[in-house]
Parts: sequence; structure tokens; C-alpha cells
Amino acid sequence: MAGNSDRFVNQIADINTDYTKWYTDVCLKSELCDYGPVKGTMVFRPYGYAIWENIQAEADKRFKAHGVSNAYFPMLIPQAFLMREAEHVEGFAPEVATVTHVGETELAEKLVLRPTSETIIGNMYSKWIGSYRDLPLKLNQWANVVRWEKTTRPFLRTSEFLWQEGHTVFATPEEANADALEMLEVYKELANNVLALPVLTGVKSEKEKFAGAVATYGMEAMMKDGKSLQSGTTHYLGENFAKAFDIKFLDKDGTHKYVYQASWGISTRLIGAIIMAHGDERGLCLPPPVAPVQAVIIPIGAAKNAAVAEKSNELKSVLEKAGVRVVLDSRDQSPGFKFNHWELRGVPVRIELGARDLEAGAVTVCRRDDPQKFTVPIDSVAEKIPTLLGEITKNMYRKAEEFTKSHIVPVNSLDEMEKALDGGNFCDAYWCGDRECEDKIKQLYSASSRVCHGDQSEVHRHKCVCCGKQAKKRIYFARAY
Amino acid sequence: MAGNSDRFVNQIADINTDYTKWYTDVCLKSELCDYGPVKGTMVFRPYGYAIWENIQAEADKRFKAHGVSNAYFPMLIPQAFLMREAEHVEGFAPEVATVTHVGETELAEKLVLRPTSETIIGNMYSKWIGSYRDLPLKLNQWANVVRWEKTTRPFLRTSEFLWQEGHTVFATPEEANADALEMLEVYKELANNVLALPVLTGVKSEKEKFAGAVATYGMEAMMKDGKSLQSGTTHYLGENFAKAFDIKFLDKDGTHKYVYQASWGISTRLIGAIIMAHGDERGLCLPPPVAPVQAVIIPIGAAKNAAVAEKSNELKSVLEKAGVRVVLDSRDQSPGFKFNHWELRGVPVRIELGARDLEAGAVTVCRRDDPQKFTVPIDSVAEKIPTLLGEITKNMYRKAEEFTKSHIVPVNSLDEMEKALDGGNFCDAYWCGDRECEDKIKQLYSASSRVCHGDQSEVHRHKCVCCGKQAKKRIYFARAY
Repeated sequence: MAGNSDRFVNQIADINTDYTKWYTDVCLKSELCDYGPVKGTMVFRPYGYAIWENIQAEADKRFKAHGVSNAYFPMLIPQAFLMREAEHVEGFAPEVATVTHVGETELAEKLVLRPTSETIIGNMYSKWIGSYRDLPLKLNQWANVVRWEKTTRPFLRTSEFLWQEGHTVFATPEEANADALEMLEVYKELANNVLALPVLTGVKSEKEKFAGAVATYGMEAMMKDGKSLQSGTTHYLGENFAKAFDIKFLDKDGTHKYVYQASWGISTRLIGAIIMAHGDERGLCLPPPVAPVQAVIIPIGAAKNAAVAEKSNELKSVLEKAGVRVVLDSRDQSPGFKFNHWELRGVPVRIELGARDLEAGAVTVCRRDDPQKFTVPIDSVAEKIPTLLGEITKNMYRKAEEFTKSHIVPVNSLDEMEKALDGGNFCDAYWCGDRECEDKIKQLYSASSRVCHGDQSEVHRHKCVCCGKQAKKRIYFARAY
Repeated sequence: MAGNSDRFVNQIADINTDYTKWYTDVCLKSELCDYGPVKGTMVFRPYGYAIWENIQAEADKRFKAHGVSNAYFPMLIPQAFLMREAEHVEGFAPEVATVTHVGETELAEKLVLRPTSETIIGNMYSKWIGSYRDLPLKLNQWANVVRWEKTTRPFLRTSEFLWQEGHTVFATPEEANADALEMLEVYKELANNVLALPVLTGVKSEKEKFAGAVATYGMEAMMKDGKSLQSGTTHYLGENFAKAFDIKFLDKDGTHKYVYQASWGISTRLIGAIIMAHGDERGLCLPPPVAPVQAVIIPIGAAKNAAVAEKSNELKSVLEKAGVRVVLDSRDQSPGFKFNHWELRGVPVRIELGARDLEAGAVTVCRRDDPQKFTVPIDSVAEKIPTLLGEITKNMYRKAEEFTKSHIVPVNSLDEMEKALDGGNFCDAYWCGDRECEDKIKQLYSASSRVCHGDQSEVHRHKCVCCGKQAKKRIYFARAY
């Protein structure tokens, strides 16, 4: 699980003075990932991929409980499919990669690598759906997608990334919209309890919605620099793709009707969110539910003390049986070297076991999320560590929530907005609803509307933060990744 | 889990008179898959994808026990990478799909969609591997690959397919070759115990080996028409890719040396093997370890009998708790309709529960692999069904093994070979080792060498089945998918 080499360990940039370089350093030096040979691509190294596997397992369980089945659709989509939904093609055409040749032979029909699969799945749904008995239909796929980006960063924005995309079909608009909202709640619960990530959820503006959707709902998380990371979206698609791909069903009343659809996705971006919301000057800090290594045992002086070596092995077995993902680091290196190694990698719990500990019948336990260091009787390790992991998840959530809450600033003017943004905050603002104001804010401050606020009750009392006209929405503005 | 519509249920071709159409009918009508819009592509429908998920889980567990970690490498490979290993490019160039454009912009460098990842992984390994301490390195990825094929069939040969590819690196040739052989054993054990599939394993001929390997080991399974399906391969790559990608390590003796590598893969082809090795005139017959539905409960007359409906629900919970993947089919359809529906889908166990059964305190149980029908006391269902599922797996293996053994024919001449092949058999033959004879047999009978026989002790006593020269190998010839 651990990296093979620690030649550059701990030479990470200062999180407070160079957050951007800190991020890249953490990604590369904790061996989460590496750059691929093609510009804009990345390699998921075992430590990074294991986080994704854990996220997948947790998400998949929740999707299945929601009545969703997994399927897999081809990656290659006829270029013509993309053209059928007007907004969809406008949104995605500039960034799709196109396959024109096989070997030396030119293809008769140009194919694109899926940037998302509404079109090809819509095409299949039109074949499969005949009557109201076939509805609802709820499928998901775990897949790679390709969107060519000019500026890329590991996990946050890469030409190819891994995600899941759910595509659901209903007889009525109410059910489809409800599904988009329910899945937003599923994502939020996952973010809170599995990633220890507080999120803001709500509807997005017309400007920020998915190309082809009637409405997009977003989940936004605040990073430690006060910027927002869009961490998941769900879309109510209405009849847009049903009309483009002729997806109809025979209803109980004997007439043929278009279906209503929703789609929803989360991606390997979530790993970026974990890094930037929880990381610190020492590197990664991983939430226990997704940490590939939840606890590391570091024997002190085991080379000269067989009893320490033996007890360390025993502890490892005991913890494995208790369901803890544990590593015993018995490499021929100093304890200090090992502490740094595993701190950089964000392992939630470190267990030190030396001769003195052994005599006292206890181990020394250090939390990665907190400077606390305490002893635990050896006999109760199997019971205490799983409980501790649960506490760490809760504490990480609490800390991130406190940070988020203290960095949301109500703003009543553009000046206040600028000041709030420059101070690393989200802006809680009132807005007239016009695209012009969003464009102006973008141009002036490089900030965008994120999601509408959960409480819209006071909107009628307010003016737009930008143009001063009557406000129509209470909405968050922020700089975003 | 079940399909939404049974309009065409059970209209499958006769397995004895039209095996090809039978296969396609079973694939489509049991809703395992469908054709994609681009020629040669396929869609994995939920029932087919769930089989793959079960195979993945079983395989992944075994890989991890073998010390392998998962990772993920980019799908897009610079075209120039493919050129670096002479045999590799010759083997794959004609069937690689090439990306030339993004949006309207032509790319400076042509990119290919991975047909396999030795090249891009080799490129990364040359960055990551520095010293003997970094070895062995054992990574695997679960991914989609693209190989453009002229003639395609669902699961067996499609332009895009899903697989896993393991890529391992060692300091010595012995270790790398041993890894290829060990993984062949892992695959064999998986085939036998999870897919109930007997297989022949051994080294492949030079003609049949992987483009770029020093040696390829294959796992071949006999289908019910006597043709062979290559179901997994492992390769000893020697220094071929190490030299092409400059993968060197500093050895203990202070000198830089090339590494030795192995690679190995199984794919969604295995689903094709399951269909064709176990299926019968009624459709699919799924081995319990990978069956998405292991048992189906069919209440008889539940609409008029609340006690039957209630007990059926209770049985479902009981079986779920016992770890059985179970479906309760309470649709408003006749029992006969439901029997056909689940038989076509190959569900291993059917549990019928009617008023009379309830009075007798028992259920009626039918096995899909065997005409047996018997009663089981309701109270012991949770205990009996898991045991029965184990027995079914063993029985399916036994039946397939018997079939395979009885369809391997020793042949001493080309005439005997032709007769054996036309009779739906594998040929157990002696061969001089020359490519010319393989080419001739291919041309005459459309058969190819599959893998060498496990027992080579009598080779010196025999002549080549084709040219009559001194034999060098005992090898299986067969027609193959």
C-alpha cells in the first residue's frame, strides 16, 4: 500500500503561503497520483485509487438501496447523437475528443469519446421502454469520461476522469424532479458521513446548469482557501432528451407520452475535495471511512526487542479482525522517518509500541486530525480503535463545518463582495436573477454563482447585490475550482 | 434486477440445430446485453453487468491476496508509444482507434485508445522504479479497452470490452515467469470454483502468443459446440518492454539492470464462456457464485391467499439474512410465465410456495442445473439453500468436466483431425513446432493450436500430425472463438 520510495518525503510547500503548490506537492509526494504522458491526463497510483475504491463502495451501496442497478454503455458515441439536443451540443462540442481512424482506415462515421452519456443512453432507452410498466427505470454506470480541458490539475480537472452517472426515467415530471432532489440528498449524506465534508446544496442558476437540463442541483464544498469545489450535481432533464431520442411510453390511458428524466454524477474530483478541505501543513488528512490505511502500527526498537516485534504482529491481526485497515511498518527506518511518512499520507491513527509501552501493557495512540496523544491498554485496542475512527470522522466534519460557517459572509454591495472574496470567503448575496449580473461579477472578481440558499423567505425585502434591482434569489457567490 | 418486459420470452433458437442463433437469442432475450449504436459495440444491461460485478469481486479478492494493488492509467496513449516495441505495434496497430481532433482542433500528437496498457504503464514504471527496493511491483487495473474487430459477437469479441490487466515487475526473469504461471493458476482456480468451468492451461505457440511477449500462457475452455474459448492469458514479457521504455533499477551490486515483467488479463469474455459452457435448450444456466439472482421465490395463488403472500415475504428476508441473492416474484402473472422467465435467465434455484406447501410446512425447490424437484421444510430453508447452491456449483463443474473430457480426441493424422473437429472435439495432437503446420491446419480446418498439453513425456515417440517430422510438442488443436 505504501509507496516504494521516500526520497522526497515532506518537502511540501507551505499551505499558508502557496496553497496551489501545496496541493500539487501533496498529490504527488503522498503518491496519490502522477501526471500521464499526454498533457492533461493523470495516473491514479494505488494509494489514490484505493480512496476511490472506498468512495465507490460507499456510494454504490447507497445507489442500490435507492433502487438503482448498474449497467455499462459504450464509450464511443456517434458524433451525430451529440447534435440532437441543441444546448447539449453547444455545451460539450468544443471539448469532445473525436475518433476518426482505425489503423490506417478512416471511419465512415465520426465517433466521440463520451463526455457524459445522456445521448447514448437515451438512444438505448428508446428501444427498451415501451409501456408504463417499464417505468421507473433507474440505471447507473461507473465509467471513464473524456472532456478536453485547457487548464488541468490532478483530480480537479483532467482530460479523462472517473465517475458514476445515474440515468433515471419516469412517467411524470414530478417523479423525475423528485429523483434529482433525492439523489442530491444521497450525495450530501455521503459527503457528510463518509468524506467528513460539509456541503451547501441547492439549485444552480441558468448560466451554471448542465447543458441540456431543465434544472441542475449542485453540492458545493468549501476548500481551505475559501474557494468552492463543485462536488456533485443532479439534473432534472424534463423531456429534453426524450424528445431528442424519441423515448416514449404507452401510458395507462392508452396514449403515447414522452418520458421525464433525471441524471446525476459524482467523480474522482471528490478526492480533490478531501485533500483541500482536510489537508494541513503536514500533508493529507484522510477521513477514516475512505482512508486506504486507517491505522499504522510503528514498533519502536523492534530490531533489538523480539517481544515488541511479536506484539506488533499480534496487534495487527487483532485490528484486522476488528475490521480496521491496518499496516504494520516494520521497515528498517527510524521512527521519525515513519511518523513523517504516514502523516504526509494522512493515516488517521498511529499506534506506537515500544519496550516501555509493552511493560506498561499499553500502546501510545496519536490522532492525525488532532494533536492528542494518549495511551490505550493493549487488551482494549480492538475495541477502542474502531470507536476512535468514528470519533475522528465526526471531529473532521465538525472542524470543516466550523471553517465553512465562519467563511460565509453576507454581502450587500459589490465592494463588500470583493472584500469577502479576497478574504477567502463565500458570499451570501441577493441577486436579481439576470445573467448580466453574473457575467459582471465573473469579470470583476472571477467569482460565479454556486447554488441558491436554502432560505428564500426574505428575498422580497432585498435588492440585487450587483445592479440594485429587486432581488429574485438569495444565492452563494464564490470563486470556484 | 429482472427485465421490464417479456414480450419475446422463450423464443430462443434450438441449441442443437442453431447454436449461433441460440447464443444471440440467449444474450438478448435474457436481457444480458444489447447492441450499441456503433457497429461492434455492446451495452451491458443490468443482468449481464451484475454477473461481471460478481466476477470482479471474486477476482479482485484473489489478486489482493496475491499482493497486487489496483491503480488506473490513462486510456489515451501517444501513438508513438505503440511503435517502441516492434512485435507489439505489428500486433495491435491495425485495430487501434485513433483520436485526431478535439472539437474542431487537430491534435499535435495522435493518440490511440488503449488496446492494452503495457506501453503507457511501462512509461510510468520507468519513472517510479529506481532501486531493487522498489521491486517487486504488482499493479492491476480494471478498465475498458478498444480493439477494432471486423466480426463481432456480444461478450466474445466487441470493439470495446471490459477487463482487468495486471502488470508486474521483478528483478529477475525467474520471478517474472513464475508470476505469469502463478496468475494462470489463480485464473484456473477462479474458473473452476467460481464459474464452474473446467479449463485447459499451458503455454501457447509462438504464433498464438501475445504481441510483445516472450511466452504466453493460456486458459482454454470448451464450449458446448466443441469450440474453444480463450478465457484468460498471462504473459512473461522478459525485458522487451523494459528495453522499449528504459525501465531499469539499481541492483544490490551497484549496477543498473533492466527489469523483467509479466502481464495478465481476463475480460467480459468470461460471461460468454458461462453462457456457452452451461446454457441449455431453456436458456442460461448460471453458476451460483456469479448469478445475480441465486434463488427466486414464486408464490402460487398468493393473490387469493394472504398467508402465502406473507410467508413468501418472510422467506425472502430469511434467505437474504443467510446471504442468498434472492428475488420474490410477486408480479401479476401465471406461475408458468414466471417459471419460463427465470429459467431463461438461468437462476440456480426456484422456490415455489402455495397453499398446499404451506399446510405441509414445506416449500417445493427446483434446481436449474438438474431436473430434480423436492420439498424442503420451511424452517430449514435458510440452512439448506446455501448448501444447495454449493452443490449446484460442484455439479455444474462436474457436468462440464465430463463433457470436456469426452470431447478431447487423440489424433494421429490430418484425416483424424478433420473428423474430430467436425465432430465437435478438441484434438490432442503431436506437432513438430513449425508455424507452417499451424498455418496449414488453420487453412484446411479453421483450427488453431490452443495450449500445450500438461504431459510432454511421450513427445519423443511421436511424429507431427501434419508434416510427419519428429514431434516437439504435445498440443491441443481446436476451432476457437
